[in-house]
Amino acid sequence: MCSPLVLARVQAALDRRAFVGAGMAMTATLAAAGLGARGVSARQATPAATPVGRSVIAGYANVVDLTHTASPTFPVYPGTGQMEMVVQNSYEADGYYSNRLTLNEHTGTHVDAPAHFFSDGATADLIPVERLIAPLVIIDISARAAGDPDAQLTPDDILAWEMANGALPGGSFVAMYSGWERRLADPDTYVNVDSGGVQHYPGIHPDAAVLLVNERDIVGIGVDTLSQDFGASTDFATHVAILGAGKYGVENVANLGSVPPAGGMVIVGGPKHLAASGGPARVLALF
Amino acid sequence: MCSPLVLARVQAALDRRAFVGAGMAMTATLAAAGLGARGVSARQATPAATPVGRSVIAGYANVVDLTHTASPTFPVYPGTGQMEMVVQNSYEADGYYSNRLTLNEHTGTHVDAPAHFFSDGATADLIPVERLIAPLVIIDISARAAGDPDAQLTPDDILAWEMANGALPGGSFVAMYSGWERRLADPDTYVNVDSGGVQHYPGIHPDAAVLLVNERDIVGIGVDTLSQDFGASTDFATHVAILGAGKYGVENVANLGSVPPAGGMVIVGGPKHLAASGGPARVLALF
Repeated sequence: MCSPLVLARVQAALDRRAFVGAGMAMTATLAAAGLGARGVSARQATPAATPVGRSVIAGYANVVDLTHTASPTFPVYPGTGQMEMVVQNSYEADGYYSNRLTLNEHTGTHVDAPAHFFSDGATADLIPVERLIAPLVIIDISARAAGDPDAQLTPDDILAWEMANGALPGGSFVAMYSGWERRLADPDTYVNVDSGGVQHYPGIHPDAAVLLVNERDIVGIGVDTLSQDFGASTDFATHVAILGAGKYGVENVANLGSVPPAGGMVIVGGPKHLAASGGPARVLALF
Repeated sequence: MCSPLVLARVQAALDRRAFVGAGMAMTATLAAAGLGARGVSARQATPAATPVGRSVIAGYANVVDLTHTASPTFPVYPGTGQMEMVVQNSYEADGYYSNRLTLNEHTGTHVDAPAHFFSDGATADLIPVERLIAPLVIIDISARAAGDPDAQLTPDDILAWEMANGALPGGSFVAMYSGWERRLADPDTYVNVDSGGVQHYPGIHPDAAVLLVNERDIVGIGVDTLSQDFGASTDFATHVAILGAGKYGVENVANLGSVPPAGGMVIVGGPKHLAASGGPARVLALF
């Protein structure tokens, strides 16, 4: 899965977490990225927001990284296969360092393009770029999900958000926050497969997806779990509704609990390779 | 390099360029992404900026995609090896579509992290997230580069930019625009290796890099060619200056000719995988 060299590099990277390189101050951002000195196992820590500082985008004071750190141990949807990393160039042999990566497009924090399910849907490289910057709506079902791994975000949750915050902004990106990322400390509990082979984690109910695409104006949806549909889904009806309407999904979104439910913006740094069904994305929130 | 299935997919994607999927209007963004009906060979077209519209970030009216579409035919630095794509899931066999990708981290529009050259430098996943959003400074050497493939951005070019636009903003991302991307229509001319095996394309002169890291305040640099250093470099002195100072580089930046030289912002949707020496990035400009 992963060469000894890369494992050594990964360990070296973990050991180096306390040192961020020449000229780079250790900042709250490391905590924001969930990458403290404890390394991967600290990923589930809730980060503080980082002031944008000099690089402020007018009107937004903070940036939060909504991206998990992908790695050969980051959990994937069953059957996808883990990411692999092999050192291609080393300091010793070449004077510089690089890796060759092998991964399914649907690895880590990633985009599902309409073409993931629909042969006539847009591939990720063709999603219009202005749809990658959108008002960020976060709907918190974490209280319910804490007691029910099969919890789903329902139309009532959308209506409750609107009661509290007003109508969904036009062109919104609507994200489910279930708090599920806490389980990344033990990846098996994140995938959460039962003895019958059925996964159990929260997702967005198909009825909510249909409401969003038919009665609201969205660019896409996000979930902090492995799939737009809840783990026990057999028909992927949320994927079908969202991708079939030409919207995109983002799965394994991080740190949504650190961003206000309304008023922020999301930047989806989605993949851009030819014929992409999706791919890893760098996702940032501004608020 | 690339399975027949993936080649078929690529052709299908090219054939589909006129159709952007259910619910997605054909917009100027397709031209902005350099992906017109002619497909890859149209990549070098200079795009119009796309109005951000409803998803406007306060104060910025336009977004431009600074990212090339990576593919198995996109040129790479010699020795890197091309990106490979293999269809892992197909509509016919699985009911959905995905690819397994194999690529060096330094493929397409991508980040060079300090760790690319320095074992004690930050890996890409640890670059503080607020450094990924920065004032965008574009220094145009395209007139000189048109007549000289070995043209370099010099300290004088930086001083001339400042004479015209004022001092470099704090925390800037400084990008060289050489117009080189026009050569992507014929990838061999983009790499431009002479009979002696030496590459010839523009880059940022080491003296300019030293000026930027010692006498100005930057987060990183960008180039619209394969390397921060010009192609004929033998010592990679610009890489050494930039990465050694804990700054990052972005190579193969697209469409810089469509963004004003001053006043814009860049969002570098850099890679986030463990121990990354760099990796593909989605790079956007706002202005």
